[in-house]
Amino acid sequence: MLLLDGRPVRDAVFDELAKKVAGASRAPGLAVILVGDDPASRVYVRNKEKGCDKIGFLHRTHRLDADTDQATILALVDDLNRDPAIDGILIQMPLPSHLDSDRILAAVDPAKDVDGFHPVNLGLLVTGKPNTVACTPKGVLRMLAHYDIPVSGRRVAVVGRSVIVGRPMSLLLNLKGQMGDATVTMCHSRTPELPAVTREADILVAALGVPEFLRREHVAPGAVVVDVGINRVDDPSAKKGYRLVGDVAAAEMDGHAGALTPVPGGVGPMTIAMLLENTWEAMQRREGGDRD
Amino acid sequence: MLLLDGRPVRDAVFDELAKKVAGASRAPGLAVILVGDDPASRVYVRNKEKGCDKIGFLHRTHRLDADTDQATILALVDDLNRDPAIDGILIQMPLPSHLDSDRILAAVDPAKDVDGFHPVNLGLLVTGKPNTVACTPKGVLRMLAHYDIPVSGRRVAVVGRSVIVGRPMSLLLNLKGQMGDATVTMCHSRTPELPAVTREADILVAALGVPEFLRREHVAPGAVVVDVGINRVDDPSAKKGYRLVGDVAAAEMDGHAGALTPVPGGVGPMTIAMLLENTWEAMQRREGGDRD
Repeated sequence: MLLLDGRPVRDAVFDELAKKVAGASRAPGLAVILVGDDPASRVYVRNKEKGCDKIGFLHRTHRLDADTDQATILALVDDLNRDPAIDGILIQMPLPSHLDSDRILAAVDPAKDVDGFHPVNLGLLVTGKPNTVACTPKGVLRMLAHYDIPVSGRRVAVVGRSVIVGRPMSLLLNLKGQMGDATVTMCHSRTPELPAVTREADILVAALGVPEFLRREHVAPGAVVVDVGINRVDDPSAKKGYRLVGDVAAAEMDGHAGALTPVPGGVGPMTIAMLLENTWEAMQRREGGDRD
Repeated sequence: MLLLDGRPVRDAVFDELAKKVAGASRAPGLAVILVGDDPASRVYVRNKEKGCDKIGFLHRTHRLDADTDQATILALVDDLNRDPAIDGILIQMPLPSHLDSDRILAAVDPAKDVDGFHPVNLGLLVTGKPNTVACTPKGVLRMLAHYDIPVSGRRVAVVGRSVIVGRPMSLLLNLKGQMGDATVTMCHSRTPELPAVTREADILVAALGVPEFLRREHVAPGAVVVDVGINRVDDPSAKKGYRLVGDVAAAEMDGHAGALTPVPGGVGPMTIAMLLENTWEAMQRREGGDRD
């Protein structure tokens, strides 16, 4: 079984962005809004900052108290929308439950929505003329391309219908053209006989957020398994008291699946690479430059 | 085989809307922009006007020459966006090829986009919190509900990935909740071994726009077949020189499929009923009234 390592693909994206930034008139700017002190969110934000530093992007993180009110956040989003040095605005999810996430996401200027979660950007994906595409689905496609795994004409099962991964992933795979043209089945918690359905797939994308949910019985022999899940499970033997596992029972894939993205080190590194690429592309569009 | 007649379902929607309009403070207003003289488009527009007359909606059709320029149409859309008497704006498709359809559709105020084609409205469908939903997919769901055909937990194949039908249809079927929760496979021209894929489906939605493309081999015995296609084929024996056929070879379904929507008289009548319902709902939202 081939392990699909995301780190060299991420590094290649970083290298290319660093080269572009070095030749650009100014550095792209990414603003992050982090509300509260969720430990996982803090790690994600720290990794984004590190990525920016590595390739020469400006970054600015607005760390707000967990009880910050909606109006304050909307006013900050508005400021960032107008700030010429900021090309990308990222609202770190999840937000505390007293906040209206939908409204806050919709307040971001679609041109600066580097997460691709704004309704306009999701809608443009439906029309087949995407602007900014959500980072994780985009990263999955990029990684498959890197490892010469075609999706065109193949059957793909996407398990999980989240707005962040499952739905944009299936739309993207379904687009016309070489990087799409897959026949996609969207599976979820209400899919009866899930193993029979997912076994029809040449490529299986797991994005349901349940630790090690997908077992050998869900996977056709030789299938490519993309594990988007990142779950913390308690592990007293681990230094931090937990370990990270995906949505796939990785140990059961060996000698069965054709390829697997490991957790960690598979899709995860791609997400941040695509976030930074989206920020670069947003800057290019704002500057009226060429889009690559 | 059960024939799923759309006309009584449409009539029930019309009756309910007529009752609501009779009790409303003003009539909902629908504006239609028709560019050029495509014969099929003229028939569609005429039917929409008739529907409006029947239930007491105001309607206004702007008939423009085929060579009308983009700026003129955008200015008209802008006027209609501001017009308080107009709740719904419909751009009759297809537009002549010198016009930028995407830009014109995106210029319509999403609150008045009763076709559900604006990127914001398509995007809200992806987020699972739909505002206005495209008429044909909405009509298909309504008709299935009317005939007590559940979609939740069932496998559905949608053939054709258009922005008007296939893509919103699959998103709608995939939503969480009683009227969604289907496991949907999106099929298209690049799906290999199509008959094997579509035979997995309990419900098959044909929306590819190719006359009588889907045959008996594509359909599982007992499956429900929803034929969205409306194609004109030459027929010298017909009074008009053509007849209407769907995307399904209807004659081959008898004694095989469990149910079929006929063409004409199946999905077609539902589309106009949903357009008028969307216009009513748009008025309710604009007036700040309750949404039903």
